[in-house]
Parts: sequence; C-alpha cells; structure tokens
Amino acid sequence: MKNQTKYKVAIAGATGLVGTEIIGILGSRRFPVDKLKLLASEDSAGEIHEFRGEALHVSLLEEDAFIGVDIAFFATNSELSRKYVPCARSEGAVVIDNSAAYRMDMDVPLVVPEVNGFKLVDHDGMIANPNCSTVQLVMVLKPLLKHVRIKRVVVSTYQAVSGWGKRAMDELIEQVRDLLTFKEIKVNVFSKQIAFNCIPQIDVFTSNGNTGEEEKIINETRKILDMKDFRITATAVRVPVFNGHSQAVTIEFDSELSVEKARDILTQSTGIVLLDDPANSEFPVAVQVTGHDEVYAGRIRKDHSVEYGLNLWTVSDNLRKGAALNAVQIAEELIKLPNLGRRKK
Amino acid sequence: MKNQTKYKVAIAGATGLVGTEIIGILGSRRFPVDKLKLLASEDSAGEIHEFRGEALHVSLLEEDAFIGVDIAFFATNSELSRKYVPCARSEGAVVIDNSAAYRMDMDVPLVVPEVNGFKLVDHDGMIANPNCSTVQLVMVLKPLLKHVRIKRVVVSTYQAVSGWGKRAMDELIEQVRDLLTFKEIKVNVFSKQIAFNCIPQIDVFTSNGNTGEEEKIINETRKILDMKDFRITATAVRVPVFNGHSQAVTIEFDSELSVEKARDILTQSTGIVLLDDPANSEFPVAVQVTGHDEVYAGRIRKDHSVEYGLNLWTVSDNLRKGAALNAVQIAEELIKLPNLGRRKK
Repeated sequence: MKNQTKYKVAIAGATGLVGTEIIGILGSRRFPVDKLKLLASEDSAGEIHEFRGEALHVSLLEEDAFIGVDIAFFATNSELSRKYVPCARSEGAVVIDNSAAYRMDMDVPLVVPEVNGFKLVDHDGMIANPNCSTVQLVMVLKPLLKHVRIKRVVVSTYQAVSGWGKRAMDELIEQVRDLLTFKEIKVNVFSKQIAFNCIPQIDVFTSNGNTGEEEKIINETRKILDMKDFRITATAVRVPVFNGHSQAVTIEFDSELSVEKARDILTQSTGIVLLDDPANSEFPVAVQVTGHDEVYAGRIRKDHSVEYGLNLWTVSDNLRKGAALNAVQIAEELIKLPNLGRRKK
Repeated sequence: MKNQTKYKVAIAGATGLVGTEIIGILGSRRFPVDKLKLLASEDSAGEIHEFRGEALHVSLLEEDAFIGVDIAFFATNSELSRKYVPCARSEGAVVIDNSAAYRMDMDVPLVVPEVNGFKLVDHDGMIANPNCSTVQLVMVLKPLLKHVRIKRVVVSTYQAVSGWGKRAMDELIEQVRDLLTFKEIKVNVFSKQIAFNCIPQIDVFTSNGNTGEEEKIINETRKILDMKDFRITATAVRVPVFNGHSQAVTIEFDSELSVEKARDILTQSTGIVLLDDPANSEFPVAVQVTGHDEVYAGRIRKDHSVEYGLNLWTVSDNLRKGAALNAVQIAEELIKLPNLGRRKK
C-alpha cells in the first residue's frame, strides 16, 4: 500500500451533516480517492449522493462493509462507532472517528493536525477527531502556548444547533415558524425551547455538575496539548444559530503577552484568520464564518483582572474545522506517512 | 411632603420598552401614585397608555414638564437624560435615571436595593439605576461575598435584543421573517445580522478594546459593591433572544465555598430564585424567566481550574429586574425615607 497513490475510502454515517461535509471536502480538496463507499443506517441506505460529478448509492452500514477499504471516516454517534469501528479496523482500514467513543483511550491519538499532527506517526489503526469546541479552542491556545505559558483558561461557548445534527436544525426552524404563526411549539431534540433562547446544556449532565460537552472541552484539550493538569473551565451553551460556534476565551498567562504580539502570533498561525479591527466593526461572527475552513479570532484585548491576561473571541464552522475538515486533514497527513502512519509491530 | 402618602410621578421615555414596563409595575405593585405623567419625545407624544384602568395621554418631554412632580423615572437614552434630568431636579423631583449618563458620577448613588439600598438615605436629588447586566451580576455576587471573599470574576453574557429597545426586537423578527422567505435581510440597529447569529458587541468599542457594555459591567459592579479594585472581566454578547439576559459566571474565591453552601445562600437571598436540579433538566433559561421579577440562578458547580471556584448560570428579565423593576424598587425604598432620602443641606 506504501506506493499506492489513490485510496479506497469509506464514510460511515455519510448522509448526516458531518458525513455530507466529508464527501464535499474530499472532492474540493482533491483527496486521492480511488473509490468512495458511502455507508449509512437503514433509514438512509439507498439514497444517492454526488461525489466529483458521479452519483453514488449509499450502502448499508454493516459488519462486512469495510472489506478492501484503506481509510474509513466515521461520522456516526458513539454507539454506532463502538459497534462498527472494530469491523473496519479488523478489515485493515485506518479509522478516523468523529465520535466521542474512543477519544480518551490511551492508545488512540486525538489529533488536530496543526496542533499535534506528530501524533499521527505511530497509531494502531485509528485516530480520533476531537469535539468541535475543543478543536476551535486548541487551535488558538497552541500557538499562544508556544510563546508564553498559560496559567488558566475560562471558556464560554455559543454553540450552533448543527453540532447536534440535522434534526436539531429542523427543530430550530420549526419552532421559529410556529412561534411566528402563534402555534404551540414542539420540543424534542433539546431539553428546552431553542428558538429565541439559550440552553446551558449540551450533552448529558455528569456527576460533577459539568455537562458532557464541558467535560470533553476540558479533557480533550488536556490530551491534545499533552498537559494533563492544564487548568481550564468551561460553560457550554446552545444558542439559536444554525451553524458556526463562537467562544469567549479568557486566558491567564505566566508572563506578559501584549495584544499586538498575540495578534501577530495568530496572524502567522496556519488555519487561523485574524479579524480584529473593532473600530471598523471587524470581528468574526457565526453567519460570516459558515462554509470557511479556518478558525477566526478577534476582539483580542487585555484582561485587567489578572496580571497577564487576554480575552478573545473565536468563531469556527463547527461542521468543517470542528469535524469534517479536521478529519480529512488527518487523512491528508496520514497518506504522507509510510503505511498510513501505522505503528510497526 | 414627609407626610404625603401618594406621589406625583413622571416617566420620561414612557412609551419605550422600559417606560412601558415601569407603568405596568407601578400598577401591579400598587405604588402610591397620586398622579402619573407620561412623557415622551415628539414621535410618541399624544399616544394613549393605560394605567390602573385609566387612559393617560402621553405629553411632550420638555423643560417644564416636571413642575409639581415628586418622583421622576427616566427611561430615556443618555443624551435625553443629560438634557432633561437637570430640569426635573431643579423642579424638586427626585430622579431615578435608567440611562448610563450619571451612573459613574461620584455624587450619584448607583443602587440595587437588595445589594446597596443603604445608599438611598443620602442623595442629592437623583439615583442612577445600573445597567441590566450589572444588576443581574451583583444580585448573585453580593450574597456570596457576605460569606467568602471573591478573588476574581469572569462573566460572559448572552443578552437579549430587548435590552436595546423596540427597534431591535423588530429587527430580529424582520430578519428572521426575511431569512425564512429567502429575502435579503436589512441590518440597521446592530452592526451585523442578529438573526441566527451572536454579536460580541454591545455599545461602542472603547480605547482598551472593551465595549461600553463590558466597561459598564466592570465599573458599575465595582461601584455598587464599593470595591474599587474588584477583579472582574467581561465579554458581552448579543444573542437572538427577544427578552431575558443569561450569564455564565465564573467566580474564584479566597477560601472554600461548597456548591451546597452557595445554593443555600442564594436560596435564602431576597430577589433570587434557585433553579438547580440538572438531573431533572432544571436550570433557568430566558424564555422561562421573561415576565418574572427575580434573578434566577442554576448550574452551580465546582470550577476545578482554581483552588476555590464555582461556575454558575443566571438568567433575568432585563426589562424588569434589569431596568424597570429595579427603578420602581428604588422608589419604594425612597418613600420609606424622610424627604425621600434627600441629603440634609
């Protein structure tokens, strides 16, 4: 396989929001696909999706669906990943899993290529793609960390409904329509009304009072930065935005980092766009960033409540850099490596 | 006037969102109104509003509109307050001003009755009503501060459009309608699209990179708590919610304050409702809190990124406790005092 230049690729969960983005991104970034296999559960198997001008049928996601596959993207929920990732691995595919199922496993690299791409050189057949909010956060923390030590991070998120999936986007639009026509709304996907409301709950509550999403932000950030005691706290909030996550990030440093220096650092960082000219109303917002690959940063300013602190505001397309794009970028790095980066046995 | 039991009351800016709330709250709380004078600019003068079953005409806000008035509520912008507050004071009215014009003046008490109502006993004819986000924040900080010293606060806000006024509510609904019918949206009130978006700008940008709203939260909190070096940083964000501000509050303490103790303290605090049972999806959200008087708190949990820290989530009706209700509560306290709390000359 070392000299192979095109790859047999499968996407499990190909018809969901993230799966669909992966199809599009593989095409637009000209990933060397030999054959693309789209897989989904019974509800969607049989659908037709377009890839590079070709109509592809969606096949059923089942145990023997991965025969002959080199790279398998999983854009499924944790339950389905746990069920089918082992099948893909046993068929010899390298798995890039977008679910939370394996992210914290010691043996599974959790990778944002710009941040810790070096972890890809020695894996055992699978890579985990981090939570969307985590990707967005570490993309700005890592370049700053290279210059100054970080003492503590406080992050509050403003997360779009697309992070949950299609049904959540439908629920937002239906609730908005019902409210505008004075009908009673239906609440199914979220625990409360999402239209014209903010819900401080993403994922289930854990025993320490954090939600699953908040725990992911904390634990995955520590794993990716390889700093197990990294001091970070998070409040994750769902907002009535279709796509594009925003974050208010408060960072306390060990020593001085000026606003200008932070701007320089982020401007020069791969995958980040600085939009930071408040006098001209220039700062990133979700509706502008949707469809873009980069993490956008702005509103960098001194936090005078600590000796050395900065506040900043970041926005990212949670379906792209937060999910599909990052997964494809992982694959792009893997194909540069001997044997797709697999550990020598 | 000392033995007077009913008061001649004026409301400047009576037809705006806050002014209208003041009319309603004066009625529902049976404030001892002898005569109510509604004042507004040319656009709204002549309108008819109902008060205690009576139809009142709105008169023009002009220099001699305050003759014979005992208590004048100002629900105007800073410019109008600067112009007409002096007229009301020179006529002998005690002014309760909701604008930002005089809040930071040394000689003007800035009051949330539950927090620093004692400041009402010695004023020079005017009281300032704090910014809505500040009210909401100090309502939870003060009771906690009575038990443990606070080292630092980080607050991120999720602020409803009603805080800007009626035109902002119209803009949100029009943008939503236009987007749902595939029309081009109009952006007038805010610097960016507000429908299905989050805008990290409330008020203008100041020279240090904070917005006016963030500066108000910081400076007014310090003034109300009477702690001029209180360490606090804020990110103020407008969200597509009609009414009800939410806040993610991260508090670092000087010593231990358990989650249970914090819950007890807030449960026993006047003007606060604790809604904190995540296992049963019980936490406050904007659409539930609209129309209620109290500041709602929930999601109290340990912040493990510091030795002694808590995170919490608060929601408040920004037009009520954040504005109109607090103003009326100030008036309720004033009428208990000799000479409405005026300083002896």
